[in-house]
Amino acid sequence: MASDTTRPLVTVPDEQWVELIQRSGPLDGVELAAWDLHEPHPRADEIRVVVPPYLDKQQRPELLAELPHLEVVQLLTAGYDNVATHIPAGVRLANAAGVHDASTAELALTLTLAALRGIPTFVRAQDRGEWQRTQQWPALADKRVLVVGYGNVGRAVVRRLLPFEVEVTAVASKARAGDDLVSEVHGIAELPALLPHHEVVVLIVPLTDDTTGLVDEAFLAAMPDGALLVNVARGKVVDTDALVAALTTGRITAALDVTDPEPLPEDHPLWSAPGVLISPHVGGASTAFLPRALRMVRSQLTSYAATGEVEHVVLTGR
Amino acid sequence: MASDTTRPLVTVPDEQWVELIQRSGPLDGVELAAWDLHEPHPRADEIRVVVPPYLDKQQRPELLAELPHLEVVQLLTAGYDNVATHIPAGVRLANAAGVHDASTAELALTLTLAALRGIPTFVRAQDRGEWQRTQQWPALADKRVLVVGYGNVGRAVVRRLLPFEVEVTAVASKARAGDDLVSEVHGIAELPALLPHHEVVVLIVPLTDDTTGLVDEAFLAAMPDGALLVNVARGKVVDTDALVAALTTGRITAALDVTDPEPLPEDHPLWSAPGVLISPHVGGASTAFLPRALRMVRSQLTSYAATGEVEHVVLTGR
Repeated sequence: MASDTTRPLVTVPDEQWVELIQRSGPLDGVELAAWDLHEPHPRADEIRVVVPPYLDKQQRPELLAELPHLEVVQLLTAGYDNVATHIPAGVRLANAAGVHDASTAELALTLTLAALRGIPTFVRAQDRGEWQRTQQWPALADKRVLVVGYGNVGRAVVRRLLPFEVEVTAVASKARAGDDLVSEVHGIAELPALLPHHEVVVLIVPLTDDTTGLVDEAFLAAMPDGALLVNVARGKVVDTDALVAALTTGRITAALDVTDPEPLPEDHPLWSAPGVLISPHVGGASTAFLPRALRMVRSQLTSYAATGEVEHVVLTGR
Repeated sequence: MASDTTRPLVTVPDEQWVELIQRSGPLDGVELAAWDLHEPHPRADEIRVVVPPYLDKQQRPELLAELPHLEVVQLLTAGYDNVATHIPAGVRLANAAGVHDASTAELALTLTLAALRGIPTFVRAQDRGEWQRTQQWPALADKRVLVVGYGNVGRAVVRRLLPFEVEVTAVASKARAGDDLVSEVHGIAELPALLPHHEVVVLIVPLTDDTTGLVDEAFLAAMPDGALLVNVARGKVVDTDALVAALTTGRITAALDVTDPEPLPEDHPLWSAPGVLISPHVGGASTAFLPRALRMVRSQLTSYAATGEVEHVVLTGR
C-alpha cells in the first residue's frame, strides 16, 4: 500500500501497538507505523509524531534528531529526564500524564504496607516453615504520612491513603491551596519543619535539579525514630550513601522502588542494609499500564489529528 | 485499700490495662482489677465483668464458670468461636466490634497488594542481591474483587479497596440493600454465580457452621485462572487440602493470614505450595489495636456502669 500523504505519520513502539491502538475504533486522522528507535526509520522525513517504546534500554533517542518534520514526542513514561536533552528545537515533548498514576500509587501503598506490616519477615519465615508470631507490627492506621510530590501520582497516592485512618500532609514545589483531598499543599521549603512530625514519608517528585539529592543526611536526620521512607520517584532523589548510613543505625526503615545506581549491582550494600525492602523499579510495570497507555495515546493522537495540539506538554526543544 | 462494695468489679488483662484505661480520664462507675485468667481470682464472687486477655493461649476460659455474679464477658477479639462454649448461663458475651476493623482490613489490603505486585519474589531476589525485573506484575487496578463477609471488617476492607480503581462485589450471609460503599449486598448462595467473574476473593466471614469449609474444591474450581484468594477470616473457612491441591496446579494463588491447622507445622505442604504468601495470624496484631481497644472498653464500661447494658452482645450463655 502506498503511503498516505494526506495523513501525518505517527510511529508507535511495535506492530502490536499499531493493532491494539485501533482495536477500540479507527484512528482516521493519522497513519500509524511501528518504530522501536533502534535503527533509523526508512520514512524518517515523513514522521510527525513519535511514541517511543516503554522502558526499552536499546532505544536510541538521538535518532529523533534525524526527523526533519517531527512535531511531537509522546512518551509512555511520566518521567522525561532521560529523553529531555534529545528533543530537537521546536519539538514538543508530552509525558504520559495519568497513565502511571494507578500503577505507581498502588505500588507506593504496596511498599508502605508491606514494609510496615512485616511482609519481608513473613516471606523469609515462610521459606523456613516458621510461624513467626513474635511481635506487634506497626499499622499504617494512625500514622502521619508526608507525601512529597503532589502531581497526578502524588494525588493518586493520597486518594488511596486516606481510607487507612491516617493523617496526610502533601508537599509540592510551592505552597498552594488545598483540593478535595487535602486542606492545603505545603511548599518544599517547609520540609525541615514537617519531617519530624511524620512517621511515613512517600517520595513521588519528578527528578529535577532541585530534587536531586533532596533526601540527604539532614533530611534523614529530621525523620523521627522508627520512620519509614518510601521512594517511588527516582533513585537520585535520595543520597544512597546517606540512606545506607541511616539504615545501618536501625533508626529508620525504607521501601524503595528506585535506587541510585540502578539497577543496583549485586554487591551493593543497600541490598543488605537493615530494614530495607527493594522492588526493581516496577512502579509502572503492571497490568494497569497498557489499557491506560492505549487510552492516553488514542486521545492524544485524536487531538493532534484534529487540531495539531496535544495535552501534557512538559517542554519544547530548544 | 478495702474493696469498694458500691462499684461493680471489672477485671482487665493486667495492671498496665488498669492504668492505660484510666489514662484518658477516670472510670468512676466501676472498680478495676487485673486478671489474666491463668488462675482463679481471689475475689471471684465479686466479679461482674471480665475482659479476658488478648490472644493469650495460657488463659483458661473455663474459670468463667467459677464467677457466681458474672454478667458480661467483653472480648478483645472480633471472633468468639474459641470462648463461646465457656459462657455461663445468662452471661452476655460482647465482641470487640470495631476494634480490629482498621488493622485487619489493612492487612487484607497488604496481603492482596503484596501478592499481586510480586513482593515475595522481590524479597527473595533482594536476599540474592538480584535486580529481578523480568515480568509485568498484576495490578489491583481494574480487578473485580469479591469481598465475602460484609460486617464491620468487610466494610473497612471495601472502603480501602475502592480508591484502587477496582470493581467491588460484597457478599453477606443474606442478600440485602447496599449502602454508601456498594450498590447491593449479595447473599452467600450467589457465590457459585459470582466467583467466575472475580479475579480477587477476600474472605472475612465469621467462623460458623455455615462458613466452615466454605472454600472447598468446588469454590476454588469456580475461581477464574490466575485468581487470588485472600483469607483474613479463620483458617477453617478454607479446606486446606483442597487449597494445596489448587495451588499445586498453579491455576490460582493465595495470601493467607490464617490457616488450618494453626500455627502451621514446619513440615506442612502449604508453606511451600506455589504462589502462596502466609502471614502468621497478625491481622489484629498491630499498633492499631491498643488505642482502639482502650476506647472500646472505656465506652462499654461507661455504658455498663450507667445502665448495666453493653453494645455488641453476640450471644447470651445458655
